Amino acid sequence: MSQNESGISEVTVEVPMNIALVKYWGKRDEKLILPLNDSISLTVDKLTARTTIRMIQGVGKHTVEINDEKVELSSNKRYQTVFDEALRLQRKRKEDSNGNENRSVSHHFEVISTTNFPVAAGLASSAAGFAAIALAIQQLLNLDDIQANRLARIGSGSACRSMSGGLVHWKKGEKDDGSDCVAVKTKDDNWTDLYCVILVFNDGRKKVGSSEGMRWTRETSTLLKHRIEKVVPERIDLIKKAYATRNFEDLARVIMADSNQFHAVCLDTIPPIRYLNESSWQLIETVEKFNQPEIKAAYTFDAGPNACVIVQKKDVSKFINALIRDIQINTDDLETLPEEFRSIEYQKDDRTENNFVCSKLVVSSMGSGPEICTPSKNLELI
Amino acid sequence: MSQNESGISEVTVEVPMNIALVKYWGKRDEKLILPLNDSISLTVDKLTARTTIRMIQGVGKHTVEINDEKVELSSNKRYQTVFDEALRLQRKRKEDSNGNENRSVSHHFEVISTTNFPVAAGLASSAAGFAAIALAIQQLLNLDDIQANRLARIGSGSACRSMSGGLVHWKKGEKDDGSDCVAVKTKDDNWTDLYCVILVFNDGRKKVGSSEGMRWTRETSTLLKHRIEKVVPERIDLIKKAYATRNFEDLARVIMADSNQFHAVCLDTIPPIRYLNESSWQLIETVEKFNQPEIKAAYTFDAGPNACVIVQKKDVSKFINALIRDIQINTDDLETLPEEFRSIEYQKDDRTENNFVCSKLVVSSMGSGPEICTPSKNLELI
Repeated sequence: MSQNESGISEVTVEVPMNIALVKYWGKRDEKLILPLNDSISLTVDKLTARTTIRMIQGVGKHTVEINDEKVELSSNKRYQTVFDEALRLQRKRKEDSNGNENRSVSHHFEVISTTNFPVAAGLASSAAGFAAIALAIQQLLNLDDIQANRLARIGSGSACRSMSGGLVHWKKGEKDDGSDCVAVKTKDDNWTDLYCVILVFNDGRKKVGSSEGMRWTRETSTLLKHRIEKVVPERIDLIKKAYATRNFEDLARVIMADSNQFHAVCLDTIPPIRYLNESSWQLIETVEKFNQPEIKAAYTFDAGPNACVIVQKKDVSKFINALIRDIQINTDDLETLPEEFRSIEYQKDDRTENNFVCSKLVVSSMGSGPEICTPSKNLELI
Repeated sequence: MSQNESGISEVTVEVPMNIALVKYWGKRDEKLILPLNDSISLTVDKLTARTTIRMIQGVGKHTVEINDEKVELSSNKRYQTVFDEALRLQRKRKEDSNGNENRSVSHHFEVISTTNFPVAAGLASSAAGFAAIALAIQQLLNLDDIQANRLARIGSGSACRSMSGGLVHWKKGEKDDGSDCVAVKTKDDNWTDLYCVILVFNDGRKKVGSSEGMRWTRETSTLLKHRIEKVVPERIDLIKKAYATRNFEDLARVIMADSNQFHAVCLDTIPPIRYLNESSWQLIETVEKFNQPEIKAAYTFDAGPNACVIVQKKDVSKFINALIRDIQINTDDLETLPEEFRSIEYQKDDRTENNFVCSKLVVSSMGSGPEICTPSKNLELI
């Protein structure tokens, strides 16, 4: 953080997106963004939002720019909510330390954010984006972790899971004010052997937004309650245990089952919600074949057709070869693989004709935490 | 029934297929085919199996011929099970009336069955087929309804729901021997205003058979139990009430919700089972549009992509016009509509280009019961 003489503070952070292994679906409080169930996630190191925030003294309009485009804040209320909360916390802190002084000093924010993947790809960029804003504001205002977590969450629920590395457990909490609803890193060391293979499957379908979808499911699914009360708590424990003991097969089983169950409760919604498309289903089949005779990969899908497949480092190149056989991979993407997989000779001759087109393939290690990177450094575009 | 001097009895019956409004998925006993939950159904008058059975005195091999093709009984054990049970009941009856006489008299069966729709279309033909066999044997052996019901059920679970007309409630029963597991017609008069529009969506996908699928779901879904214990009993009551009061909207809501939930538990299975394809989903969308501002149609899907849409008589032609806009209907099929809809001028000019192909469209009234039709009459092919 730096503050110049004109009363401007500035900080730059870089925050990875995260992928849930047990899914968040449904809010117990729409305003505070408190979830109906716990979720648990890992970050995707290579897909990040890099954000610079300036806090400027004086009355003025907040501005947000993402990938060189101005965000219309009047139609994106969540930014306003986050800035209001940040300024409330700042005032509170000043009051606490100085009595009622400084009450009248106002500030506004200027946010410039860049993601190294297309926002339109539907890779949950808003989670990384809001986590970055929250982390930057934490630096600027010297907030504690719980305050920063809350700031991320009221921007975009799952953003709070990007506030640290390793296996992150977002607890739904019980309290109405959300004070016990926090995402915390589990105490295990990061399992550095885990990689993910992300496949972007574009389709022209109009998507049901996740906020709207969650609301419909909560209001109409007769299965969701059972999932929340009985299934999820067990799965959170299973994931933690498998992660702590580095049991990949157990981890993978729960990841796949929970992705499927999330999509099952979407289908149990009135009207039914469908996020998976034919390419998603082909990917499921490819993973099933790849998992014979032993489980070496786990697919998971968020509220869209894109797949995230988690594999151990030793199986990444084998899995890419399996993909090449079943799905149209852009071979240029193989040039941007992490270095450790780039020099491998992939079996491009095995490509078969089919209609399953992956418009972007990304391979990344998992579990890194966010980074405070002032002074600025260059972001590697992928 | 007729019996000639050579000891051959013969009877011909015609039995409609049925479509479940609350779905059967999962067995509590694989051998006796006892379901995990109640289901409730209506018959489809126009899709029938017409079956002639001859019971021949003397040792001999049972034979079954469906649509002019011999069925290989060694790989279709269910026929043997049904014939064994029939002969056991016959022996028992004779013993009861005559002491131990006639014990040694053996019989065998010859079955010739014709369906008026292609078996390969996946329209649950086995249900109608086994119901026809059971009903014919009931006539031959003078069985009571419970015995006949059981005979149908051990052939193909849902066959027992084709043994009568009107709204049929198949009760799962509680007893281990299945004696309280019967399908019974509810006491309401048949709602003759209900029609169904059946759309066959062929696809090349290999299908998970329903017996196998049920077993996987029972063994792996963490949602099925809740469905069975909590959701289904409520829905059975809702369907009965809506049917009794002729409340189409309430009926339709439950039908669609239960179809979706059945497919949701399939998706919650390990590995996940998918029966709906892109055409099925287009049909769902078409029905959703058609149901604005008021619910006039209800889709339901069994273990395959084919749709059955239930509408009231007054809305049949409107719904066909809605279909024509979104799905490639074979216009020849409009020539075979029930007479009351045949002379209508359909809006064929509204046909748009798309990839959703319905290879066969059938419109039928609902709720007729089976018929004993010796001497033989001709079956109208559709």
